[in-house]
Amino acid sequence: MYRDLHNALALVSNNISSLISNDDFPESVRPACLASAVRSYPVRGGKRLRPALLLWADGVLGGEPEQALYAGCAVELFHTWTLVHDDIIDEDDFRRGQPTTHIEIASFAENAYEKSSSFNEKYGRDMAILCGDIQQAWAMNMLLKSREKGVKDSLISDLMLRFQEVNKCLISGEALDVEFPMRNLSGITKEEVKEMISGKTSCLLKFAVQCGGAIALGKADFEEGSLATLGAFAEELGIAFQLRDDYLGIFGSVEKFGKPIGSDFQEGKPTFLYLDAMELLPDSGKKRLQALTGLPEYTEENIRELRTLLQESGAEARTLQEIAHLTEKAHSRLMHLPENKYRKLLEDLLSYLLERTV
Amino acid sequence: MYRDLHNALALVSNNISSLISNDDFPESVRPACLASAVRSYPVRGGKRLRPALLLWADGVLGGEPEQALYAGCAVELFHTWTLVHDDIIDEDDFRRGQPTTHIEIASFAENAYEKSSSFNEKYGRDMAILCGDIQQAWAMNMLLKSREKGVKDSLISDLMLRFQEVNKCLISGEALDVEFPMRNLSGITKEEVKEMISGKTSCLLKFAVQCGGAIALGKADFEEGSLATLGAFAEELGIAFQLRDDYLGIFGSVEKFGKPIGSDFQEGKPTFLYLDAMELLPDSGKKRLQALTGLPEYTEENIRELRTLLQESGAEARTLQEIAHLTEKAHSRLMHLPENKYRKLLEDLLSYLLERTV
Repeated sequence: MYRDLHNALALVSNNISSLISNDDFPESVRPACLASAVRSYPVRGGKRLRPALLLWADGVLGGEPEQALYAGCAVELFHTWTLVHDDIIDEDDFRRGQPTTHIEIASFAENAYEKSSSFNEKYGRDMAILCGDIQQAWAMNMLLKSREKGVKDSLISDLMLRFQEVNKCLISGEALDVEFPMRNLSGITKEEVKEMISGKTSCLLKFAVQCGGAIALGKADFEEGSLATLGAFAEELGIAFQLRDDYLGIFGSVEKFGKPIGSDFQEGKPTFLYLDAMELLPDSGKKRLQALTGLPEYTEENIRELRTLLQESGAEARTLQEIAHLTEKAHSRLMHLPENKYRKLLEDLLSYLLERTV
Repeated sequence: MYRDLHNALALVSNNISSLISNDDFPESVRPACLASAVRSYPVRGGKRLRPALLLWADGVLGGEPEQALYAGCAVELFHTWTLVHDDIIDEDDFRRGQPTTHIEIASFAENAYEKSSSFNEKYGRDMAILCGDIQQAWAMNMLLKSREKGVKDSLISDLMLRFQEVNKCLISGEALDVEFPMRNLSGITKEEVKEMISGKTSCLLKFAVQCGGAIALGKADFEEGSLATLGAFAEELGIAFQLRDDYLGIFGSVEKFGKPIGSDFQEGKPTFLYLDAMELLPDSGKKRLQALTGLPEYTEENIRELRTLLQESGAEARTLQEIAHLTEKAHSRLMHLPENKYRKLLEDLLSYLLERTV
């Protein structure tokens, strides 16, 4: 199952990793600990989902994926710099099983200097801010290098302009996610949550496929024809993926979800699942759901009760239906694109990312 | 004195402020408090020194400054986003007499939400990180808009590539400034301090004049002819300006310096003035200078003794000579450029910024 997909993903990952690792942009960064932080997340690997979407979107429209390789690195680097700043904001200690950038630099400082741990921690955060700043420039630098692959300057300018809109959209999504916990959970609307998901998840996926497609076509009419189709596909994929993540967060297993089950409820996150349940439940159920939100820890009994509330309210079914609906829509978009091996890879990627296994 | 200069600066400032204020880039930023933060520093005004350098460099090489206006906004916006992140790192409360971005957002949160002040302060810092991130994209967006003024896409790509190098150089300078206090003052070399100053001050000034010049010439051969001359001029101006700032920081008046006299010594900053004195003083003098570094507060007597040490060691004279030497060199660069009203403005700006009045 998915053997071609996994092989193709591994190929993308190798190509992207090797270009990023060998790129000399971070070399002149000073001091040395910052230069190594700038390379840290980008060389850690991961699924390289965004470059894969970009390269296959280029391929599906008849482009030569080789020509889009630098652009593939650009979206990957763009993704990683937002993670570096995200991790400072969320005060996370780990990213892909290794220390986050601010923690990595703080540990370095602990060995290198004779300062107290609060100095070292602040040093870690300060340098991590600067690290993300430079990585943003590195991402731009990579996209600009596409000219070396024969991408026209006028197209590069169009793509660069669009990339700045992606920054705004993605960071706005992140900012809404930072703002929500400051407000009363009851005042947050589904519209706002959708905006947050669009920003944090869909927006860069959409850019990735449209950028790849535009390189194939040699022009960037994002709102028309195949580029619009690709954009809609990526948007639907992104939202469905997020809904699935919310679903797994309470109905999945720790292994699949990667975080403790129930952590969204613990953090009081306004997921669609939660908002739907609050809309559908009778008053007594609403009260129970609220009582089960923001607890310091969650027993198996708490998780069972949460699941029952979400099931009996119909919120679970609604979310699963919505995921199925979006997956189907995204799939039908692909059917409007030329049939070739890249379309098959995009189809496989869609079903792989959204498969029902919990 | 300098009437033409001041009029010309006021004109630049008006044009830049009006373009920035009317630009719609920040409009779609969410939530609203972040959108308003993104506009905050850019509309506060200030000298608009970088746009002036850019526009006059365009003018001196026969360009039409109108064509370089968006690029002028780009360097100004680039400057402001680095200030936003700088202010978080330095934990500064004020910028141009108004609250810094992180303080502004924390105050907003205090009124808007019902959270404790530590939550509000963290919210201010988190949002200020995101604010600078979006402003960096806004700066890129502005430079890209130069195509609307007829700047060719290939030139824009060249300038954009160079702009990413400026990010790296400037942020590396900032990072060295963050790193120095973690180390022993005695281990910091003049070479490193020069690198820090080049990054924090000269690098963006150099880009400003070279970008303006390149727009005038329609091509970007930064290392040749007039563009190389303009670059050297800006580098010398930047370093001289920083040395003068160090000088005023101990020999100037509070009004002129804007911060308490002696604050560089209080913070233990490795200025050239300090490093020169440590190089030139006999052991007993070195000991006194070290004893007078990092005090919790500075009496008039302390300041007097510091001044005497700097004077008697010859460090003061060396710094003044270096400023005079750099000013003269920068001036002679201008003499290689076409003689016109823009060259006169650049000459006036040089002597105005570096005038000896303390």
